[in-house]
Amino acid sequence: MKKNLKSDIPRKTIYRLSVYLRCLQRLKVNKIRTVSSEALAKAAQVKSTQLRKDLTYFGQFGTRGLGYDVEQLSVMMGDLLGTTSLQPVILVGVGNLGLALLSYHGFEQEGFEIIAAFDSDSQRKRTKCRIPIFPMEDLAQMIADQGVKMAILTVPAPEAQEVANQLIGHGIVGILNFAPIMLHVPEEVMVNNVNLAMELENLSYFIQQ
Amino acid sequence: MKKNLKSDIPRKTIYRLSVYLRCLQRLKVNKIRTVSSEALAKAAQVKSTQLRKDLTYFGQFGTRGLGYDVEQLSVMMGDLLGTTSLQPVILVGVGNLGLALLSYHGFEQEGFEIIAAFDSDSQRKRTKCRIPIFPMEDLAQMIADQGVKMAILTVPAPEAQEVANQLIGHGIVGILNFAPIMLHVPEEVMVNNVNLAMELENLSYFIQQ
Repeated sequence: MKKNLKSDIPRKTIYRLSVYLRCLQRLKVNKIRTVSSEALAKAAQVKSTQLRKDLTYFGQFGTRGLGYDVEQLSVMMGDLLGTTSLQPVILVGVGNLGLALLSYHGFEQEGFEIIAAFDSDSQRKRTKCRIPIFPMEDLAQMIADQGVKMAILTVPAPEAQEVANQLIGHGIVGILNFAPIMLHVPEEVMVNNVNLAMELENLSYFIQQ
Repeated sequence: MKKNLKSDIPRKTIYRLSVYLRCLQRLKVNKIRTVSSEALAKAAQVKSTQLRKDLTYFGQFGTRGLGYDVEQLSVMMGDLLGTTSLQPVILVGVGNLGLALLSYHGFEQEGFEIIAAFDSDSQRKRTKCRIPIFPMEDLAQMIADQGVKMAILTVPAPEAQEVANQLIGHGIVGILNFAPIMLHVPEEVMVNNVNLAMELENLSYFIQQ
């Protein structure tokens, strides 16, 4: 069922699922076992009609009058998002930003493990980094051996398209792209762009007086 | 005119403006002086109807048959986005991610300058960082003296709301939030959330088979 639905579900709904999942995790930490749609919606800062609509994409949850079972709903969402088991991720481009992401510990709690980093410059095999840094030649082998499907791309803009092509050629189907260019990829490959300068620019626009 | 329009313009349109601006900058580098809406739309990976619709929010651009003047359109967009002059930004929370962003040189080319960083832990006044790190007590003074309106928030989740309240109390009206929580802020304050784990989760969902 999931497979058929996938293309019909808006990307924004999937982002909101991530938000709901975080809210549910906080409830679990606080030992709260059930939650009403109103309370969960409020925590996620959406309308409760929106929450209920989002959840209908995934079948029926919750019991009228009793609300949602926190544990059940979060397991279901984790399964849907594919984060129930730790997923291997590689990072390509160990410049400032890449190195920063390697030392960022926020991913593992969320179901992702950066298993290796790659850089064309072998000088960058820095010893202080806890994640091993390999030359680009080892890319194909690592992706095949570890069954990696996702990559974080932190190379400079002029190299990004070529490196993306390599990654896709070796079997990567999901790219989190930090390079400030729009990548051209085949239809079956997903790219999420994170452009920090664009986020600032967007803020900048809205705070102008 | 800009002021009245502001609330009517979708946030997505503003993001696309940032993309168009980047495409225009590349054209300028390549000494291309005019561009058709079809060519600009293709570079930005949007439909040309979308591009034309986005530009109508800002009045009439371009001459039928001649296309857009690259220089004129990029100055106009820079003005709209408020990035024509260098804007001061502060960063709060000098952990791994904060430190990474401080050493990331991508902001200045885009019209933003991180002028100072703040952290509650005075041990973090690391000397290797080119941007000065101050204790939280200096926050109010810096914001007032430098007329800072935007802040990057990279504190841990449990502290984020309290620090956001402080920032807003001192006059910050735009926050780029990296803490994985939804901040509660007054209506006049803009928050853009960057949650790297959520981006991976979103990718993860779509690449499942």
